[in-house]
Amino acid sequence: MRLLIVSTSTVFGKPYLSYLKDECADFFKQSKKILFIPFARPGGISHDEYTSKAKVFFEDLGFEFKGAHEFDNPEDGCNWAESFFIGGGNTFVLANELRMSGYFDLIDKHVREGKPYMGTSAGCNMTGISISTTNDMPIIYPSSFEAFGWVPFNFNPHYLDPIEGIEHMGETRETRIREFHKFNTLPVIGLREGSWIRVEENSVVLKGDSTARIFLANEDAYETLEIPKSIL
Amino acid sequence: MRLLIVSTSTVFGKPYLSYLKDECADFFKQSKKILFIPFARPGGISHDEYTSKAKVFFEDLGFEFKGAHEFDNPEDGCNWAESFFIGGGNTFVLANELRMSGYFDLIDKHVREGKPYMGTSAGCNMTGISISTTNDMPIIYPSSFEAFGWVPFNFNPHYLDPIEGIEHMGETRETRIREFHKFNTLPVIGLREGSWIRVEENSVVLKGDSTARIFLANEDAYETLEIPKSIL
Repeated sequence: MRLLIVSTSTVFGKPYLSYLKDECADFFKQSKKILFIPFARPGGISHDEYTSKAKVFFEDLGFEFKGAHEFDNPEDGCNWAESFFIGGGNTFVLANELRMSGYFDLIDKHVREGKPYMGTSAGCNMTGISISTTNDMPIIYPSSFEAFGWVPFNFNPHYLDPIEGIEHMGETRETRIREFHKFNTLPVIGLREGSWIRVEENSVVLKGDSTARIFLANEDAYETLEIPKSIL
Repeated sequence: MRLLIVSTSTVFGKPYLSYLKDECADFFKQSKKILFIPFARPGGISHDEYTSKAKVFFEDLGFEFKGAHEFDNPEDGCNWAESFFIGGGNTFVLANELRMSGYFDLIDKHVREGKPYMGTSAGCNMTGISISTTNDMPIIYPSSFEAFGWVPFNFNPHYLDPIEGIEHMGETRETRIREFHKFNTLPVIGLREGSWIRVEENSVVLKGDSTARIFLANEDAYETLEIPKSIL
């Protein structure tokens, strides 16, 4: 499989996806038709609005870009697509709509057969085993928390270090992931903003500005510049 | 119904529940046997450990206090109980275990018939219509997001105002609740730490140090010292 697993679409103060321009141009270079899945609807914006926003970026790079909602059915959408991009927003809304629409199984099939997939934020969560380590509010009840399971671990995108001085305001991200590990044994990768993972046939490479934080059940979390082979 | 709906068990720097001592003594005064539901397991602690922690506080106040897990079945637990206390932790773990154990329907029945109920944090979420406005990580998939629905709205406990200067680090709580309102019309009460709501036969009173923040679909959020009659 070919995957671009991205913590966030937007880094503070820069236009949408701009910091990923070179990576996107390269990753999608042999698949000019990108199907966009706008289902996560950040802030509840419409599928049309969300697609328009992402389209500007990808058309500037020379790609054809369409939203999943523009097709009569998921078969047509997936057959048109040479690659997929699932944008961020609310992970529960995304998981729900992927299944309700019939896109879930089809995207899974096409990506496992080799079509490139990029996912940011909620779209990053979907590449793991489950959405159980999302940061989002569960505003909709999906029929399952299962994700595509293309990599054998879970993600926590927008991973944040504890902020000194505000310890009393809710649990830290690390505390929440530790709690997850009281009930699950899956490794979790805390992927900081500005970081992403590129998966190719024979490699899994962490890219971007930061180390990632690796959380394993019953072990101390640690920082890494490489995704450890032990969890692949 | 008689309800004590509490944002948090612990305010920063003070012992467990200590700030609620007088309120608890008064609220439970005619129901000396309190059944504790330790299912939310904060930080994954065991039912025994969690029950022991809460027991110290309530025994000091002269109450009999037992954990739900100490009974052979939920019928025995609920029949023994003159009142209920659901402690905080992870709302998904709580919702899942309430249903798996059979306690959900029985507690609902006993509270609707008049036994007092206190809930903190995750236990606060359970008094509303659904758990969809919890802050917790969805570390377990429950068979439903539906809560007891004893009040006709939802809660966001530990409600936090935006923190100036860290806007770039994820959505604010208000942004998340607005997103909830793109998909739901239920009123949501943002209940700040140190605040609680006491529901008696003929009154619903906000108590504690702070205003609450009321979120209605398609309207501006506002602060209040009284729970508005319009949402009751």
